[in-house]
Amino acid sequence: MLNTFGDTFRVTTWGESHGKALGAVIDGCPSNLPLTENDIQYELNRRRPGYSLFSTPRKEEDEVEILSGIFEGKTTGTPISCIVYNKSQQSKDYTAIKDTPRPGHADLSYQLKYGNYDYRGGGRSSGRTTIGNVIGGAIAKKLIEYTHKIKVIGYTTEIGTIKGDFNYYNNPEFFESDLNIQKLSNQIEDSVLRCPSTNSNEMNEYVFKAIDGKDSVGGVVEVVIYGLPKGIGNPIFNKLEGRLSSAVMSINSIKGFEVGKGFESSRLFGSEMNDEFYFKNGIICPKTNNAGGILGGISTGAPVVIRASIKPTPSISKTQETVNIKTLETVPIKIGGRHDPIIVPRVIPVIESMVSITIADLMISSGFINPSKLSNI
Amino acid sequence: MLNTFGDTFRVTTWGESHGKALGAVIDGCPSNLPLTENDIQYELNRRRPGYSLFSTPRKEEDEVEILSGIFEGKTTGTPISCIVYNKSQQSKDYTAIKDTPRPGHADLSYQLKYGNYDYRGGGRSSGRTTIGNVIGGAIAKKLIEYTHKIKVIGYTTEIGTIKGDFNYYNNPEFFESDLNIQKLSNQIEDSVLRCPSTNSNEMNEYVFKAIDGKDSVGGVVEVVIYGLPKGIGNPIFNKLEGRLSSAVMSINSIKGFEVGKGFESSRLFGSEMNDEFYFKNGIICPKTNNAGGILGGISTGAPVVIRASIKPTPSISKTQETVNIKTLETVPIKIGGRHDPIIVPRVIPVIESMVSITIADLMISSGFINPSKLSNI
Amino acid sequence: MLNTFGDTFRVTTWGESHGKALGAVIDGCPSNLPLTENDIQYELNRRRPGYSLFSTPRKEEDEVEILSGIFEGKTTGTPISCIVYNKSQQSKDYTAIKDTPRPGHADLSYQLKYGNYDYRGGGRSSGRTTIGNVIGGAIAKKLIEYTHKIKVIGYTTEIGTIKGDFNYYNNPEFFESDLNIQKLSNQIEDSVLRCPSTNSNEMNEYVFKAIDGKDSVGGVVEVVIYGLPKGIGNPIFNKLEGRLSSAVMSINSIKGFEVGKGFESSRLFGSEMNDEFYFKNGIICPKTNNAGGILGGISTGAPVVIRASIKPTPSISKTQETVNIKTLETVPIKIGGRHDPIIVPRVIPVIESMVSITIADLMISSGFINPSKLSNI
Amino acid sequence: MLNTFGDTFRVTTWGESHGKALGAVIDGCPSNLPLTENDIQYELNRRRPGYSLFSTPRKEEDEVEILSGIFEGKTTGTPISCIVYNKSQQSKDYTAIKDTPRPGHADLSYQLKYGNYDYRGGGRSSGRTTIGNVIGGAIAKKLIEYTHKIKVIGYTTEIGTIKGDFNYYNNPEFFESDLNIQKLSNQIEDSVLRCPSTNSNEMNEYVFKAIDGKDSVGGVVEVVIYGLPKGIGNPIFNKLEGRLSSAVMSINSIKGFEVGKGFESSRLFGSEMNDEFYFKNGIICPKTNNAGGILGGISTGAPVVIRASIKPTPSISKTQETVNIKTLETVPIKIGGRHDPIIVPRVIPVIESMVSITIADLMISSGFINPSKLSNI
Repeated sequence: MLNTFGDTFRVTTWGESHGKALGAVIDGCPSNLPLTENDIQYELNRRRPGYSLFSTPRKEEDEVEILSGIFEGKTTGTPISCIVYNKSQQSKDYTAIKDTPRPGHADLSYQLKYGNYDYRGGGRSSGRTTIGNVIGGAIAKKLIEYTHKIKVIGYTTEIGTIKGDFNYYNNPEFFESDLNIQKLSNQIEDSVLRCPSTNSNEMNEYVFKAIDGKDSVGGVVEVVIYGLPKGIGNPIFNKLEGRLSSAVMSINSIKGFEVGKGFESSRLFGSEMNDEFYFKNGIICPKTNNAGGILGGISTGAPVVIRASIKPTPSISKTQETVNIKTLETVPIKIGGRHDPIIVPRVIPVIESMVSITIADLMISSGFINPSKLSNI
Repeated sequence: MLNTFGDTFRVTTWGESHGKALGAVIDGCPSNLPLTENDIQYELNRRRPGYSLFSTPRKEEDEVEILSGIFEGKTTGTPISCIVYNKSQQSKDYTAIKDTPRPGHADLSYQLKYGNYDYRGGGRSSGRTTIGNVIGGAIAKKLIEYTHKIKVIGYTTEIGTIKGDFNYYNNPEFFESDLNIQKLSNQIEDSVLRCPSTNSNEMNEYVFKAIDGKDSVGGVVEVVIYGLPKGIGNPIFNKLEGRLSSAVMSINSIKGFEVGKGFESSRLFGSEMNDEFYFKNGIICPKTNNAGGILGGISTGAPVVIRASIKPTPSISKTQETVNIKTLETVPIKIGGRHDPIIVPRVIPVIESMVSITIADLMISSGFINPSKLSNI
Repeated sequence: MLNTFGDTFRVTTWGESHGKALGAVIDGCPSNLPLTENDIQYELNRRRPGYSLFSTPRKEEDEVEILSGIFEGKTTGTPISCIVYNKSQQSKDYTAIKDTPRPGHADLSYQLKYGNYDYRGGGRSSGRTTIGNVIGGAIAKKLIEYTHKIKVIGYTTEIGTIKGDFNYYNNPEFFESDLNIQKLSNQIEDSVLRCPSTNSNEMNEYVFKAIDGKDSVGGVVEVVIYGLPKGIGNPIFNKLEGRLSSAVMSINSIKGFEVGKGFESSRLFGSEMNDEFYFKNGIICPKTNNAGGILGGISTGAPVVIRASIKPTPSISKTQETVNIKTLETVPIKIGGRHDPIIVPRVIPVIESMVSITIADLMISSGFINPSKLSNI
Repeated sequence: MLNTFGDTFRVTTWGESHGKALGAVIDGCPSNLPLTENDIQYELNRRRPGYSLFSTPRKEEDEVEILSGIFEGKTTGTPISCIVYNKSQQSKDYTAIKDTPRPGHADLSYQLKYGNYDYRGGGRSSGRTTIGNVIGGAIAKKLIEYTHKIKVIGYTTEIGTIKGDFNYYNNPEFFESDLNIQKLSNQIEDSVLRCPSTNSNEMNEYVFKAIDGKDSVGGVVEVVIYGLPKGIGNPIFNKLEGRLSSAVMSINSIKGFEVGKGFESSRLFGSEMNDEFYFKNGIICPKTNNAGGILGGISTGAPVVIRASIKPTPSISKTQETVNIKTLETVPIKIGGRHDPIIVPRVIPVIESMVSITIADLMISSGFINPSKLSNI
C-alpha cells in the first residue's frame, strides 16, 4: 500500500502542498464513536504552520471539514472523508526546484521515479501532506481514549546536542494520575519546543544560533503510550515494535527509531537489561521498563516507550551545491521561501498520530475493540 | 499478517523450537531462477547453533529440504515450500519455563495472549524460528543478486561498549570491486563475532568476561545494500526505510533501528546533514551519504545503510527474580540449558535475510523484477 | 478491506446518499497518464439518474472535481482524489425507513450491524455510492486503453424473461475492428435499456407493464474484455475469474456471476465444452471460446466474457409487509420517493468500472503496466 | 496474494501433483481449539481419489501430518503447518503434456506465463493441489462449528441435464434439527454423486453413458451455511457474497456462482423477489429466502445459500485437436492416464472448505471470534 496505513483501522491520505486540497479517508472506525470536526481541528492546530516563533510564517488555517461517515454526531462505521482546502500557497516561490533538486529533499528521487511531478513546495513530499496523518491520528486517538483510556503523549527530549533533564516513561505511577498527565501536557504545549525540561531555554538559544547561521536543527522525540492492555501485538512479523517502527519511519525526516532502552540496550549486560518480574496489585509486572513495555512483540501492560530521531530541516538559506538536471552543471542553491529552522515540535503531533493509528489498528485486529460498533459506554 | 512478510515476494514461516519441524513457504518468487538446496543450506549454516565458540552447544544440522516450486533446477513461480526437521530437541530442560516466566523473554506475554502455549525452548518465540526467515532470505538474496547484482552485507560494529574502528558504507567505490567484497566477506566470516575490525580481539575479551560473570552481551550490526537501483520505495507509508525498519524490528532482541546517520543526524546542523549533489559518471550522485541512500522514502542509487541494536541474550545463568504464575510468589530463576552468551553474530544472517526479502519484495512491486518470470539472463 | 478495492491499483470510495458529498481516492495509478475531469465525467453521466425514461427523476448533475494527483494534465503517481457534491437530496422522503426496514434493502442489516446508521436514502447502501466505483473505473478504463488498447464493453442480454437475439463475444474478429466497436457502442448507448438487440422494443414493453403494476424488473448483463494480453491472472486464489467475480459481486443487486459458458457449461459434455487449439496468425488460439478467455485462472488471449444477474429494483410502490423495529408489529410499506423501475442499464457502467479496476490492478501486479510511471507512448 | 486466502484466518497452500509433497500453512487460527490429524483426515478422505466408482483409480492415501501449531491437543495461535506426501505419482504418463497443451486445461497458460513449468499431472494446476484447500477448510469448519455451531453442507443438485427433485435451503426449520442434518449428511455421503435426490440413479446412468462415449460430465452444487449470525460481511467491497464468490471461483473448473435465487432472480418481478419481513421467536426474519441470507453484503440470519456450476472434466479419452508448441502443427490428442469422468462429488468438500475458510475469516474480522484465543466453552 502506498498511501494507506493500517489493516483494520485504515487511513488513506492524499493531496499535495500546492494542490487544491489535502485530506484523508478513514476506513474501519467502528460506529458509535462521538466525533466532531473540533476533535480533528484541535490536533491540526497543533501541527499548523505559524503556531510558534520557530515555524514557517506561511499562514494556513488548515480548517477541516468532515464529508461523510458521521450521523447525528457519531460515527456510522462507514468511511470518514475529511478535507482541508489549501488557501495560502504561493507557487511562484518554488519554480527553481523544477530543475535544481534541493539537497536533503526528495526532489531528485521523485523526478527519477515519476517523471511528471508537482514540484511546487515539494508536492506530495512536502511535510504539508502530514495533514492527512494528523486527521487519521486525531480519530484514532479519540477512539482508543474513548474505549480504553489509552494516552499517547510525545515530547522533545533532545534538540541538537542539548539533552533534556527528565525521564517520565519509567514512572508508571506518574501516568496513573489524570492531573499529572494534564499538567505534563500543559507543560509540553506551553514550551515552544514542546520540551518539558528545565533547560529548555538553553535549547531555544541553540535554535536561535542556528537561525543566525542560516542553518537548521534536529532533535529527538519520545512518545509514551500509557494504558495499553497486555496482549497487543503479534509474535513474528506483526510485532508491536515492528508496526510502530514502520508507522514512525513513514514520517519524512525521521532517521532512527528505538523502543525502551533502544541503542543503549546493546551496551548493557543481560543482567542489567532484563526486567525482573514482581507481583503488584494483582498483576505480574516488570520491576523496570528497559524493554519499553514489549516482550516478544506483545505488550506487557507496562507503558510503551519509543523514541525517534529527527534530522535538521533540509531547507536552509545557506548556500549549498546541487546539479541542474537539464544542463548537468553544478550550481549553487539557497532555499528561499518560507520554512522552519526546526520541525521537531511540529512533528510531535504527527508521530503521536501515526502511533495512535497503529494502536487503534492493533486494538481492533487483536480483538480488543469491536470492528463494527462500539457498545454504549 | 502474523506469520507472513512481504506483499509480492511473501515469506510465511512456521514451526516451534521443540516441534517436529520448522519451515517456510515462499510465494511470489518468479520462475526461471536457478535454485538448489545448497543455496539455502549455505545461509542456514551461517545461523546454525554451534558454528562458533560463542554459540549454544545444541547440535543441530538444520538440513533443509525443498518440497515444491522447483522443476529442473529452476523456480516455476509456484510456492517454494522448505522444511527443516528438528532433531536434537531436549524437552526436559525447559519444563520450568511453564510456571516461571523468564525475565527478558516472551514467556509471560505468550501465556497471557494465548493461554495454551508450547513453552518448550520458548516455542514459537525461540530464536530457532528464524530458520524460516533465513530460508526466505536465502532465496530473496539469490533473486536480487541474480537479476541486479545487489549485495546485502552485514557485520558487527559494536559489542557491548567496544566500538569497531572502520567504516565501509560511505565508500561506494569500495563496493564496486568484487574482489573487495569477497575479501570483506571472508574477513567477516573468519571473525568469531563477524566483526571486520582490528580491535575484534578486544571484543572477544569483553564477551569472555561476561561469560565468566554468568552474564550476556549485546551489540550493534550494520548492513549495507549495494547495487540497489534508484527509485525503489514509495513516498508515503511504504517508504524504503519504513519497510526496512519493520523487517528488522520483526527480529527478536532488536530494540533500535537507524538509517544513514540515524540518531547522530539529530545532533547535526542542516548544512552538515544534507548531502550535496554532484555529477559523476553520467549520473547525479550525493557527495556524502548521510541520508543512507534514501530520500523521501525512495532509493537514490547510493548504498543503503542501516543499523540495528541487539540486546544482550536474555538467557543468563545468573540468578534473577520472577514470579511463579500459579503460586504468585516471587521466586529466583537461573536459566539452565544451552544458550549463547551473545547472539549478535548469529543474528547477522537473519537481518540480512529480512533485508533481502524486503528488497526482493520492493523490486517486484516497483516493477524492476517481473513478478511472473525472469527472462534468460 | 471494507471500502478499498484492488492491490496495486486501489480505489477507496466514500460517501452516503444524503451526505455532503461522495468521492473516491485512486492510489497506484502510474504517472504520465493524460487525465482530465472530462474523462471521468463521461462515465459518471452514463450512470447519472435521469438519463433515460426508466431512471429516477431525481435530478443530480454529479459533477466531478479532481482535487489531487494531476499536474500539467497528467497523473503524477500520487493519489487522485475526486469529489462529487450532493445537491438534490430530499431527506424528508426517507424518514420512514428509520423504523420500518424495506424488503430487499439493506436497512435491517445495517441497523443490526452498526446501530447508528444514516438511513436517509439508504445512506451508504444506496446505489448512489457507486459514483465512487465509476470514478475509479473511468481512470482504470483510460489506463488500460491508453497502454494496451484494452476495451471493456457491457450490454444488456436479458430483461426479465425476454432474451436478446445476438451474441458478440464468441466473434473475436468483430472486436478487431474499431469501427465495429464504435458502432456497437453507439447502438448500446442509443438503446434505453442498453441492449443492442432487435427485440429491444419488446423489452421496453415488458418494463412498461411492470411500471403499470407498480412493480420492478431485473435483467442480465454481459461484459466483454477485448484485447487483454495472455498471462493475466494467477493460478490459485487470485484467479482472473475469482477477481472478476468479487469485483462484480460487490455491486448491490447482483445475485449471480458467470464466465464463458457459465452455468450452461455444467450441462455440456467435456467434448462439447473443451475449446480445441489451433494455430492462427502466429499464435495458438482456442477455436471456440466456451472458457470465456480464461484457463487455470490465467487469460488466454481470447476475449474474456462474463455475465451478471441483476435482481429487480427492490424499491416498489406496491404494498409489501415489513416489521416496525420499535413496535415489532407487522406493518404495510409502500416505497415512495424517486426510484427506477429497472436499474439494469445504469448498472452497466458500474460493472464496466469494477471490471476495469480489476484489469488495471492485475495488469500492474502481473508486470504488464509499470507501477510507477508510463513511458512515453 | 497468489497462494494465500483470507485476511485474518489465512490459508497458504503449496505443492504440485507430482512433487514430493503438498500442504498448507494455516495462520490466524486462535488458540485453544481442540484439533487432531483425524479432523483433517476425515475431510481429506472425502476428496481422496478412488473413493468411488466414478473417481480416478490413482491410489493415494493422502495421509496428513501436522507439523506445528498444536500443543497438548489444542491450537496455540501459531501457524499450523500440515503436509501430505505424494506416494503414487507416475510421471511417465504425462510426458506428452509438455509439448501438446490439453484442451480445457491450464497447460498453455502456464507455459506462456511461467516458461518453466512442472507439467507432470498438470503440476500446480492439478486438482490434486486442492488438498491444501481441504486441510485449511477442515480446520475452519471445526472452528466455526466449535464456537458457533455453524454448519456448511454441500450437495449435488444437477448432473449434466438432469436436475434433482428437492430443495433444502428454503426450509430453515429443517436445519434446526441435528437429527435432520445427520440424516441428510448420511444420504449425501451414501450417494455416489453426493446427491440426496430420488432420481440420483438417473444421474448415475447419465454418467455411465458419458463414460461409454469416452466423454465427461459436469454439474451444479449447492451449499447451505446454517447458523451464521446476523452481521457477517461488509457493505461495499468485502460483501459476504463477494467474498464467497471469490472463494468458490478460485476452484478449478467452476464457471458460475450464484447466491439465493441467483440468475433466476433477474426473471422475477420486484414483488416476487423481495423477501417480506415478519416477527418470529423474538427476531425479525425474512418470510422467504430469495436473497439467500444476505442483504447489502451482510448476513441476515437466514441460511446462506450459494450454488456453483462445475464444468465437465477436461480430461477425456475422446480424440481432440491441439497444437504442438514446438512444431506448431495441429495434432490429435487423447488424454490417457487416470482421470475422473465427473469431478462434481469430489469438488463438494473443496467448495465446503473454501466456504468454511471464508466464514472463519469473516467471523474473526467481524469480531465474532476472538483472533487470539478461544475462551473455554
